[in-house]
Amino acid sequence: MYKVAIFGAGRMGHVRAKSIAMHKKTAIAGIVESHQQYAENFADSYGVNILTAEQVMSDESIRAVCICSVTDTHADLVEMAARHGKAIFCEQPIDLNPERITRCLEVVREHDVPFLVGYYRRYDPQFRTLCEQFESGQIGVAESLTIISREPSLPTLEYIRNSGGLFKSMSLRDLDMARYILDDEPVSVSAHGSALISQNIADEGDVDTAVIVLTFRSGAIATIINSRRSGYGYDQRIELHGSKGLLRADNTPDTQVEHWGDEGCVRATPQFEFYDRYQRAFQLEWQHFVDVLGGMSIPQCMGDDGLRALQLADAAKKSLETGQTILL
Amino acid sequence: MYKVAIFGAGRMGHVRAKSIAMHKKTAIAGIVESHQQYAENFADSYGVNILTAEQVMSDESIRAVCICSVTDTHADLVEMAARHGKAIFCEQPIDLNPERITRCLEVVREHDVPFLVGYYRRYDPQFRTLCEQFESGQIGVAESLTIISREPSLPTLEYIRNSGGLFKSMSLRDLDMARYILDDEPVSVSAHGSALISQNIADEGDVDTAVIVLTFRSGAIATIINSRRSGYGYDQRIELHGSKGLLRADNTPDTQVEHWGDEGCVRATPQFEFYDRYQRAFQLEWQHFVDVLGGMSIPQCMGDDGLRALQLADAAKKSLETGQTILL
Amino acid sequence: MYKVAIFGAGRMGHVRAKSIAMHKKTAIAGIVESHQQYAENFADSYGVNILTAEQVMSDESIRAVCICSVTDTHADLVEMAARHGKAIFCEQPIDLNPERITRCLEVVREHDVPFLVGYYRRYDPQFRTLCEQFESGQIGVAESLTIISREPSLPTLEYIRNSGGLFKSMSLRDLDMARYILDDEPVSVSAHGSALISQNIADEGDVDTAVIVLTFRSGAIATIINSRRSGYGYDQRIELHGSKGLLRADNTPDTQVEHWGDEGCVRATPQFEFYDRYQRAFQLEWQHFVDVLGGMSIPQCMGDDGLRALQLADAAKKSLETGQTILL
Amino acid sequence: MYKVAIFGAGRMGHVRAKSIAMHKKTAIAGIVESHQQYAENFADSYGVNILTAEQVMSDESIRAVCICSVTDTHADLVEMAARHGKAIFCEQPIDLNPERITRCLEVVREHDVPFLVGYYRRYDPQFRTLCEQFESGQIGVAESLTIISREPSLPTLEYIRNSGGLFKSMSLRDLDMARYILDDEPVSVSAHGSALISQNIADEGDVDTAVIVLTFRSGAIATIINSRRSGYGYDQRIELHGSKGLLRADNTPDTQVEHWGDEGCVRATPQFEFYDRYQRAFQLEWQHFVDVLGGMSIPQCMGDDGLRALQLADAAKKSLETGQTILL
Repeated sequence: MYKVAIFGAGRMGHVRAKSIAMHKKTAIAGIVESHQQYAENFADSYGVNILTAEQVMSDESIRAVCICSVTDTHADLVEMAARHGKAIFCEQPIDLNPERITRCLEVVREHDVPFLVGYYRRYDPQFRTLCEQFESGQIGVAESLTIISREPSLPTLEYIRNSGGLFKSMSLRDLDMARYILDDEPVSVSAHGSALISQNIADEGDVDTAVIVLTFRSGAIATIINSRRSGYGYDQRIELHGSKGLLRADNTPDTQVEHWGDEGCVRATPQFEFYDRYQRAFQLEWQHFVDVLGGMSIPQCMGDDGLRALQLADAAKKSLETGQTILL
Repeated sequence: MYKVAIFGAGRMGHVRAKSIAMHKKTAIAGIVESHQQYAENFADSYGVNILTAEQVMSDESIRAVCICSVTDTHADLVEMAARHGKAIFCEQPIDLNPERITRCLEVVREHDVPFLVGYYRRYDPQFRTLCEQFESGQIGVAESLTIISREPSLPTLEYIRNSGGLFKSMSLRDLDMARYILDDEPVSVSAHGSALISQNIADEGDVDTAVIVLTFRSGAIATIINSRRSGYGYDQRIELHGSKGLLRADNTPDTQVEHWGDEGCVRATPQFEFYDRYQRAFQLEWQHFVDVLGGMSIPQCMGDDGLRALQLADAAKKSLETGQTILL
Repeated sequence: MYKVAIFGAGRMGHVRAKSIAMHKKTAIAGIVESHQQYAENFADSYGVNILTAEQVMSDESIRAVCICSVTDTHADLVEMAARHGKAIFCEQPIDLNPERITRCLEVVREHDVPFLVGYYRRYDPQFRTLCEQFESGQIGVAESLTIISREPSLPTLEYIRNSGGLFKSMSLRDLDMARYILDDEPVSVSAHGSALISQNIADEGDVDTAVIVLTFRSGAIATIINSRRSGYGYDQRIELHGSKGLLRADNTPDTQVEHWGDEGCVRATPQFEFYDRYQRAFQLEWQHFVDVLGGMSIPQCMGDDGLRALQLADAAKKSLETGQTILL
Repeated sequence: MYKVAIFGAGRMGHVRAKSIAMHKKTAIAGIVESHQQYAENFADSYGVNILTAEQVMSDESIRAVCICSVTDTHADLVEMAARHGKAIFCEQPIDLNPERITRCLEVVREHDVPFLVGYYRRYDPQFRTLCEQFESGQIGVAESLTIISREPSLPTLEYIRNSGGLFKSMSLRDLDMARYILDDEPVSVSAHGSALISQNIADEGDVDTAVIVLTFRSGAIATIINSRRSGYGYDQRIELHGSKGLLRADNTPDTQVEHWGDEGCVRATPQFEFYDRYQRAFQLEWQHFVDVLGGMSIPQCMGDDGLRALQLADAAKKSLETGQTILL
């Protein structure tokens, strides 16, 4: 049984806590959270103690940390945990600044601790199936990848302000998926965006509707279509076109029951909650981390992947600002 | 934490063991199984002891029994458990003989113990959604129900010999669903069948392909279409037509990924394993039993439901033999 | 160019007129219709003359008759046309009385004229594709056929009174399809029905909701599920299960455009008008008749098919009345 | 009856000839084609005469011309026809050079003849339905449009050489659809492309796989995803996301019959032939031209639309060459 301390009692802290608690081989060692009320609620929910970072680091029975706190604390915590020999699971992004990530990853490498970045979509069964069918050669060589990714509804203004913008908070995961699926590196990034949904977003200088086009070394082209608000649920679709056909991973509604009436044939929208949509991915990702802890597997999504996604998001931002395709 | 003893280390014993072990409020108290090898494998898998029925009954710390043994042991075990005050979860059918079921249920009633019969399909999220939409009035009054239910591949000859025939082993669950969905009782049963798949089945005087038509008190007509072997997975579909429209619960494949190539657009078949198909139903059914144990809920599928399904299967058999619609 | 006289200016008369007028090799020779207003409207619509039956029969330039008048006139007109050497296209049923059909067909055979009965569903591209895939061996040997056939909305009471009942007016076409698809003859018929939609239908002693089960010589079982009113369009579906898989011909909506909104994902219902649903089938059926006229093809649906369907509908009626499976 | 002379006996000449011949109010007046063999085959197929351009222009009984010849002849023919007072139906593009188009359109305007450019996709029933639902307000304000458009298989090298490149020969139609659906003008164009399918295309300096991103005055973003070879049929899909939901027009296969077997659930690919895919669109477009001839309607797709699409294709080419987003 691996004891895991969680940093951060926000949304992702709760998501990860469920996976840790449900897994037979892991247990929550405690919660580190500066907001007293959040910390207490979390501690009550899972029947665990509130700890300080120092307590976690000095407790040798704690095997791993799960870093779900606000982004600007990630890099410091990762370094601290690495220095104390803890295995590290860290939410993405590691930091909003690529240089900071690079320094952080050097520390991780130096102490040679297991390190996994939380790009959970890589573990989604739908997308996994698409990847497996692609790897088995069903559609030949990849030519064109389309990722449609729309959140169900606008996040809070506070979230938007601290998010680093659409590209670093939302597109980031799609940028990672593009690299992951194509198993290749982009050579250029071109981004386009508008603030159509919210004046607040426009006032922040951010966009809520965007398209990013990546050209890869192979010549394959990936298109990412984003929106902060779909209006019909958490829209998460991927299509990969290759030399011998196409693979399409459509949305996965909770239920496939259809109602046929005089106004049409109606089925459920995609789920609205990201936790419902990616519940299985969170479990499988955690299983992978447990496998890493047990020496059964090496991390599939390491720090360099986290760095690379952030660099691509940065390039997208630069492209949007300059109206130019950014060469990498 | 409720301790639950399992009777029978066969397929359903393992299915139920998973639910009991996964649920936070229940634990497996031990396994009762006469086949030594099966018993040992089961005990090893779940880290539990092999017990005798007597040990289970006399152990006051054991709150409930989960009866998954062969059908002809069900009624005796149910009565024994009732007499010892255990809560009872019993696989269907309770017995192949309606009179035996009736006597058994009297004993249960006499000792007033919680009793749930395992018609797991009632808890399937797809079918639940269909029921909820029907109950909410979306399609008005029920007129015609169609249940298509085909097993992926032929069971063993041994299973077929001991099963009591297609109607009592397979159609039984569909007959229960028809009563459950329509919330009404049939007034007539008409059955038709052929042995097309297996000469062994024909030699047993059984059928492998069948259609059962039930007319209910309301006049609504239910059609059950069965096969012992689909060839394309576990085909489990329900459609309900009413005065204002139709509800359709189609199959739920593992993945919705499609492959488009020159030979067609291909998506996954329905799951082949009944455990995969009804995994969530098993969990939700067990949650319901835990709610019953905790006094939070009354059993949704009681002994009379089990008796009724068996009587309908008997009537279907009689209809097939006589070429007549059987009035109930 | 073949000149074709149409008998009957009702719904089917207009349907056939469109096919005849659109086809390059046929022209409408005139309309025979006793209802003056209907006759005039028809004549105006297609720019043709109103004729008497005698004029049609004695005009040697008229190659064929298309009989779309009320059912009880069919047999007399068929015989008259056969005696005058006309090729005959006749709507089904030929008559409501099997003996009358038999006598009529003897006259046709005696005069050896081309004769086609209008079971247009045989020509529907969807169902054709299903048949072709079955014939190519894709699903092996047929085991179970399911035909779901529901009209969009109730016909007029006058229609119902003159229709000969649900089985002879509606199920008839499905009974023909079952024989056609399985290319086999049923050995038994069992029918079940209720009058749930309309008190008028109940008062007529008719049913509006029905299930017919046919067992064929091969042992294959066909189930026909009918309703006089779907509430969501013209529901026309066929599934054929065989030893190696299943073929499913679902409904064909006018448009596949989907609207995804917060209340669900909505697509169009099946068409409401039978003409829209079977427009292509009517054209292809007429093409077949033209091929027959030109000696390029022999009739695919002859008088005996019409007789057989009517006999099956009769047997279904008898089964409903007696509660017995009728052996043929 | 309007007599229409066709220029060009190539693929589109035949496509248009079918529409003209099938329509009750139009007839083919003759074919103008310099390639003798093509001209004779065409004349034979439709039973018409081979004419010279001069004969067409001087024949006052010829009401309209249908210009389907090679692109570099379009502008001259349009001008000639305008000067002779003929109504004009012209395939797109009018010319590969925007200036030439502008001059040509001046001549058309001067002589005030009916003029329709053949952007047939505007008339496709699927896309029409999408437009109508959008116009009715179902999804609110447009935010993001996605057009996926892939040809089934590579065209001939000769075609590619004379096509003016992917953007002017293929994307052109999608660029027109983006403007048409959004009823707005783009303010910028960004294009990305690779030659992945054919070395010949690379040698021509052309691309076969491309993504074009357009930003409109409203801020709405349109993404066009193109390929010269899908491998699975003529892939033609449009999605429009708005402030209140999404409209999706998926492919329309010939048949919706599915085959369920042990290797998956298979349905038909999209049609491979563009004529099959857009057959109905061609008919409806011709109906519109007939309505224009009859003064019942004004042209929905005029010369300026043709010019605009060409300018956008030009801008896309420039963007691809410079790596910059082109401001319009």
